[in-house]
Amino acid sequence: MIVVMRAGASDQDLAHVIEKIEALGYRAHVMYGVERKVIGCLGDERGKAQLQSLELLRGVENVVPILSPYKLAGCQLKPEPSIVTVSSECAIGGRSFAVIAGPCAVESEEQILQTARAVAAAGANALRGGAFKPRSSTYSFQGLGEEGLRLLRLAKEETGLAIVTEIMDRYVLDQVIESADILQVGARNMQNFPLLNALGSAGKPVLLKRGMSATIEELLLSAEYILAAGNPDVILCERGIRTFETATRNTLDLNAIPALKARTHLPVLVDPSHGTGVWSYVAPMAKAALACGADGIIVEVHPRPEEALSDGAQSLKLDKFAALMNEMKPIAEAVGRNLGRRNAECVRA
Amino acid sequence: MIVVMRAGASDQDLAHVIEKIEALGYRAHVMYGVERKVIGCLGDERGKAQLQSLELLRGVENVVPILSPYKLAGCQLKPEPSIVTVSSECAIGGRSFAVIAGPCAVESEEQILQTARAVAAAGANALRGGAFKPRSSTYSFQGLGEEGLRLLRLAKEETGLAIVTEIMDRYVLDQVIESADILQVGARNMQNFPLLNALGSAGKPVLLKRGMSATIEELLLSAEYILAAGNPDVILCERGIRTFETATRNTLDLNAIPALKARTHLPVLVDPSHGTGVWSYVAPMAKAALACGADGIIVEVHPRPEEALSDGAQSLKLDKFAALMNEMKPIAEAVGRNLGRRNAECVRA
Amino acid sequence: MIVVMRAGASDQDLAHVIEKIEALGYRAHVMYGVERKVIGCLGDERGKAQLQSLELLRGVENVVPILSPYKLAGCQLKPEPSIVTVSSECAIGGRSFAVIAGPCAVESEEQILQTARAVAAAGANALRGGAFKPRSSTYSFQGLGEEGLRLLRLAKEETGLAIVTEIMDRYVLDQVIESADILQVGARNMQNFPLLNALGSAGKPVLLKRGMSATIEELLLSAEYILAAGNPDVILCERGIRTFETATRNTLDLNAIPALKARTHLPVLVDPSHGTGVWSYVAPMAKAALACGADGIIVEVHPRPEEALSDGAQSLKLDKFAALMNEMKPIAEAVGRNLGRRNAECVRA
Amino acid sequence: MIVVMRAGASDQDLAHVIEKIEALGYRAHVMYGVERKVIGCLGDERGKAQLQSLELLRGVENVVPILSPYKLAGCQLKPEPSIVTVSSECAIGGRSFAVIAGPCAVESEEQILQTARAVAAAGANALRGGAFKPRSSTYSFQGLGEEGLRLLRLAKEETGLAIVTEIMDRYVLDQVIESADILQVGARNMQNFPLLNALGSAGKPVLLKRGMSATIEELLLSAEYILAAGNPDVILCERGIRTFETATRNTLDLNAIPALKARTHLPVLVDPSHGTGVWSYVAPMAKAALACGADGIIVEVHPRPEEALSDGAQSLKLDKFAALMNEMKPIAEAVGRNLGRRNAECVRA
Repeated sequence: MIVVMRAGASDQDLAHVIEKIEALGYRAHVMYGVERKVIGCLGDERGKAQLQSLELLRGVENVVPILSPYKLAGCQLKPEPSIVTVSSECAIGGRSFAVIAGPCAVESEEQILQTARAVAAAGANALRGGAFKPRSSTYSFQGLGEEGLRLLRLAKEETGLAIVTEIMDRYVLDQVIESADILQVGARNMQNFPLLNALGSAGKPVLLKRGMSATIEELLLSAEYILAAGNPDVILCERGIRTFETATRNTLDLNAIPALKARTHLPVLVDPSHGTGVWSYVAPMAKAALACGADGIIVEVHPRPEEALSDGAQSLKLDKFAALMNEMKPIAEAVGRNLGRRNAECVRA
Repeated sequence: MIVVMRAGASDQDLAHVIEKIEALGYRAHVMYGVERKVIGCLGDERGKAQLQSLELLRGVENVVPILSPYKLAGCQLKPEPSIVTVSSECAIGGRSFAVIAGPCAVESEEQILQTARAVAAAGANALRGGAFKPRSSTYSFQGLGEEGLRLLRLAKEETGLAIVTEIMDRYVLDQVIESADILQVGARNMQNFPLLNALGSAGKPVLLKRGMSATIEELLLSAEYILAAGNPDVILCERGIRTFETATRNTLDLNAIPALKARTHLPVLVDPSHGTGVWSYVAPMAKAALACGADGIIVEVHPRPEEALSDGAQSLKLDKFAALMNEMKPIAEAVGRNLGRRNAECVRA
Repeated sequence: MIVVMRAGASDQDLAHVIEKIEALGYRAHVMYGVERKVIGCLGDERGKAQLQSLELLRGVENVVPILSPYKLAGCQLKPEPSIVTVSSECAIGGRSFAVIAGPCAVESEEQILQTARAVAAAGANALRGGAFKPRSSTYSFQGLGEEGLRLLRLAKEETGLAIVTEIMDRYVLDQVIESADILQVGARNMQNFPLLNALGSAGKPVLLKRGMSATIEELLLSAEYILAAGNPDVILCERGIRTFETATRNTLDLNAIPALKARTHLPVLVDPSHGTGVWSYVAPMAKAALACGADGIIVEVHPRPEEALSDGAQSLKLDKFAALMNEMKPIAEAVGRNLGRRNAECVRA
Repeated sequence: MIVVMRAGASDQDLAHVIEKIEALGYRAHVMYGVERKVIGCLGDERGKAQLQSLELLRGVENVVPILSPYKLAGCQLKPEPSIVTVSSECAIGGRSFAVIAGPCAVESEEQILQTARAVAAAGANALRGGAFKPRSSTYSFQGLGEEGLRLLRLAKEETGLAIVTEIMDRYVLDQVIESADILQVGARNMQNFPLLNALGSAGKPVLLKRGMSATIEELLLSAEYILAAGNPDVILCERGIRTFETATRNTLDLNAIPALKARTHLPVLVDPSHGTGVWSYVAPMAKAALACGADGIIVEVHPRPEEALSDGAQSLKLDKFAALMNEMKPIAEAVGRNLGRRNAECVRA
C-alpha cells in the first residue's frame, strides 16, 4: 500500500504516519518527490482495511492499495488453469467448452424430462433447473422445493446428465448436496458469506455467479471464501452486471472473461440468458463467449417458454437450443475447444 | 400490463395473444392505433413474470408493466406515514429525526462503552455496532460474534440506548433478537429471501438497507417480503449505490428519499458513512438527509478511527459527532423535525 | 403513449386529461381496469416530450412511452441491412467483416507509414489515425492537426487504405472531409447536435461512436440526426460504456450488437481497444465481436505502444495485430463472414 | 506515478523499466517489498498518458497514478473559495446561495416575461432559459434561436435579472455572449474541448455542467480547459449522473458537493430539476443542496408546465417556486447562507 502525503505536510506529520505504519506491522519506505512525499508500506496487505484508515491522519492525502488479497484464487501460486471434473461426461475448464442447459425453474415432471432429453440429445454436459428460486417479489413462484430436487434426480437417472441447481440457504444444504452435482450460488448470494463458508465443506463443485454489481475483484474474493474454507472446486460465472442500459435486462460483461483469465486459474462460465434477458440475443452472446475464451455456458431452455413460470422471455425453445449447438460447432473448432458432452477431458477422465 | 404489437402483426397473431392473456386470467382490451395495436391486460399484476413471457409470441413488439406489486409497503392501502416505536427514547418516523450512531464493529468493551456514552451524551437515539460482520475478504476481521452481542447489552444497560446490530444469518437469529432492539439487514442481504422471510416472525423492528445496486422498486419488494411474513415494523435505509464515480466509496442517493416517500408509508433512514466512505463528507450529507425529508441517520462513530478494525476512513470521531448534532439542530428546527433523543413521538410514547 | 391514472382519480380528473391529450392532437382511448384507468394516446409520438408533461395533471400516476422516434434508422421502413461502400476495398455491412486499424494519434511520418504498411499487409480494410484528438486534460498531446491529415493522405497514397479520422469540430470539417474516407464522431461528441447536423451534408460516410453513457436508443436517435440531415451512410460503433467495473477502462457492451441488429439496418462496428483499455483483452473481444454478428472492428495498432503519445496501454503491436487477423480467419469462416480487405462486397463493388 | 512490478520480474526487467522512466524525464525510485518491487516515478505528472504505457513493458504488473493534473482548478495554488460576481444582484460563491430559475426553453414573450417577473419577485438572482436547445431527438423542439435571445434581453430589461443561457456551438458564440451574463455549457458538451477552449476568451462567466457520466476528476479537467485558456470565472454544476435507477431521470449526486469542495476553489451549483426529472422531488433536493454546502441552485420554473415544449415534468409552477424560496429561508439561516437576490456579497459588490 502507498500513502501519499499532502503537499504541505510537515516533517512531524510524516514521522507520525511512519510510526503508525510500523505499529501496524509494516515497514515504511519514504520517497521524496518534487512536490510531496510518498510512503510505501511493505508487508502482507491482507489486513488492508486498517491501513486504509491512515487516510485519517494529519498530512495524508490518500492511500492507494497495490495488491488484492485473493491468494488461493489468484494465478501466482497456481499459474496453470484448473479443471473441475464433475462426471465422466462433464469437465469444466481446459480444452472443454461445457454446456449446461435447462429451465429456470423445475415446473413439472413432464417439463423437466422433456427438456433433459432434448438438451442431452443436442450434446449438453449438464442439466440446470431451479428447485428453490430467489424471486424479487414474495408473490412470485418460488420453486417446487424438495419435489423439484426429486424431479432433477429423475432426469439424471434417465439421461445421465449432471445436475446443476441453486443453493440459497444453509438450512437445505444437505438436501441439495444429495441431489446436485454442481451447487449454484446465485448472483444475489455472491456475498452471502455464511453460505460461502458452509460450501467450503460441501464436497461438491460450486458454481459461483458474479453479483449484479460485483467487481471482478469482489467475485474473486468471494471465491477465496470457498477455497479458503476447503473446497478447491470453484467455477466462476459471468451473468451480466447492472448498468444504465435498459435494452437488455443486464449487461453481459464478456470483458470479464479475459480479465478473469488474467487473474485466476479457476474456470469461467457465461450465462447469456440472464446476461441479456432476451432469448434472441442468447445465441449471439453464447457464440461470443466461446470466441473470447470462456470455458462454457449455462443457458435457459424450456419446451414452451411462453408458459414458463419464470424467465420465459429469455429462454430458448428446444429446437433453438439444438440449432445453437450446431452453430457453435465450427466456432469451437476454430478456437480449438471441445464442445459439449463428448469433449476431450471427459474422455480422459 | 400493456402488450404492444408489431406494426405488421396479423389479425391471427392478435387473436392468439388475446387467447394467451385470457388463459392467464386477465381481460384483454385492444386499442387500434395509427400504426399498431396495443392490448391492455386488465387484472391483478402480481403474477407479472408470466405476462412478460408474452413477448415471445409472434407479432409482439414488447410488454410494458404498469404497476408494482408491493401492496403492503405501498402508499395506497396505507397513505399515512408509519412510525416504528423502538423504545421510549427511540421512535422512527413521523416528526422525529432519529440518530443511530456507533462503530462499524464492536471491538472491545472500552471502545463500545466509550462510544455509547459519548453518542448518548450528544443526543443519539440508538447505538449501532456490528457483532457479526460481512467482509468482502475472508481474511478481514469478521466481528467478535457472541462476545460482541454481550458488549452491546452492556452498553445498553449503562446508557439506555436502543441497540441496532446486523443479522447476517438465520443460524444466529435467536441470539441476535435477544440482544438487539432493531435488527439490521445489510446491503448484501437485501435479497436474501430466506432471511427476510425469517424476519417476518422476529418480533423486533427490521432496518432494511438498500442493496448496492438495488432499485427503489426492488427495495420495496424486499420490504414486502418481511411485511407479508408478518412483521409490520420495517425501516428502510438508503446507504449509497454503486456507480462509476470513484471519488466516493458509494454514491449516496438522496433522491431515494422523496422517491420512497412518494411510494411507501415506511420510514426511511440515511447512512452517510457507507454512502460516501469519507468521514469529512458525512456531516454535509447528514444535513442534506435532514433537509430533504429523511426520518433519521445511521452514522459510524469511533473513538479512534485511525485504529478501527473496519471502516475507519468513514468514521467520525466522538467530538465531530457531537459537533454534527449541534449543526443539525437549527436545520431540524427549520424543517420542523425533532432531532435525536428527546423527540416528540418518544415523549408521547 | 399510455397514461396511467391513480387509483383514486376522479371522473373529472380523467375528463381533464383526455381534453389535454386531444388538445395535443392525439386520440384518447380509455381502458377501465380493476383498480385504475389507463388511457392510450393514439397518434404520432414524435412530439413525445409534450405528452410526458401530462404527468403533471391531477390524478395521473405516470406516463409510459411506447415507441421510439427513429424512423430512418429503424428497421421498419428498411428491413434489409445497409451496406456502406467506402472504396473498392472497403465495404461495411453485409457479409463483410471490415477491419479498421491504426494508431490512436498520428505522431510522425515514420510511425503512420510503418503502421499503414503493416496493417495493409495483414489485410486491414482501412487505416485509422487521429489528427485532432479530444483529450480529458488540456495538458495532454492534442494531435498534429493539419499536419496529421497530410500524413494520413500520404499513407493512403502509398497503401491504398481508406482513411478514418475523427472530426471534433465544424470549423475544420472541410479539411477533414478532404483527407478522410470515413468521418469518425467520437464518443464525447455523440450528442454534439450541431456537428451531427453538419455531417448530414458531408458527402462522406460517418462512423458514429456510442457515447460513454448513451443508451442504444440514444445512439439511434443521434444517427437519426445525420440521416434526417441528408447523409444515408452512417456506421454505428460500440466502444464500451461506463460502469462501476474498474478492471477495464470501459465495459465493452457486446450485447449492443444483437440489440442494435434488432432495431436498425445500419452496420455496427466494435472498438475493442477503447472498449477494454487493455491490449491483451483486445484480441479476445475482437473475436467475440466477430462471433456475435458485428460488421467489423476498429482497433488501435502502434509500432511501439510503450512510446505512444496516447492510448499506448490498449494498442496492439504490429505482429500482435497480424496474429489477430490470422486467429479471426477460421472464426470468420465458421460464421460465414468475409474478413478484411478482400471481402465479397468489395469485389462486387 | 507508481509502477508495480510482477512477483517474478527479473532484474533485467526492472532495469529496462527504470531506463524507460528516466527517458520520459522522471526520476525512478525503487522500493524492495516482501514479494515484489515497486517503483516511484518522481516528477510532474501532467504527461501522465505516456507513463501509463509502461504497463506494456515486460515484468510490469500495473501502473497507479497519484496526482490529478488540474492545477488551476485545484485547491493547492488557491485555497480560498472563489466568488464569481455576475452583477450587483448576483454573486456566486462565498456566503451567497444563488438561485437561478426559469423555463427549460424560451417559448414566447408572454411565457418568459411572466416567469421572469415571478422568479424575480420570489427573490431569484438570475433567469435561465434556453434559446438553442440540445435535444436527443432531431424531431423535438430545438429552441427559438436568436429570437429566444432577444426575448431574454427583454426579460432582463424589465426585471434586472442576470441571464443564463446555453451555448452549444462556437458558431453562435458572439450572439450568445451579447445576450447572456452567464454562458451555460450543457452536460452533453462538458467534453466539447474546442468549445471549452473558445470560452477561455469569452469574457463572461461560464456555468459548466457535469456530464452525465463524468467523474468529478473529469469535471475539474474540463474546468481546467477554460481556466487555462484565460477565463477565471468558472462555476461548476452537479446535475445528476446516469445510474441503473429508473425512478428518477438521473441520480442527482449531492456527494459531489463535499467532494468538489475538497478539491477545488470554484463555486458549485446544483440542478435538482435535471437531477431528478420529477417536479415533486425538486424542492427536497434543493433544500438538501443548501444544507450540504452548495453555492446555489439552477431550477426549472414554468407558468404552465403541462404545456411546456420540453422538460415539463420536472418544472415547478410559479407558486411552487415561491413556496420553495420560503422553505429555504430558515435553512439558509441555519447554515449561515444568504439566500437569493439580496445576499451579502451582492450588497457589498
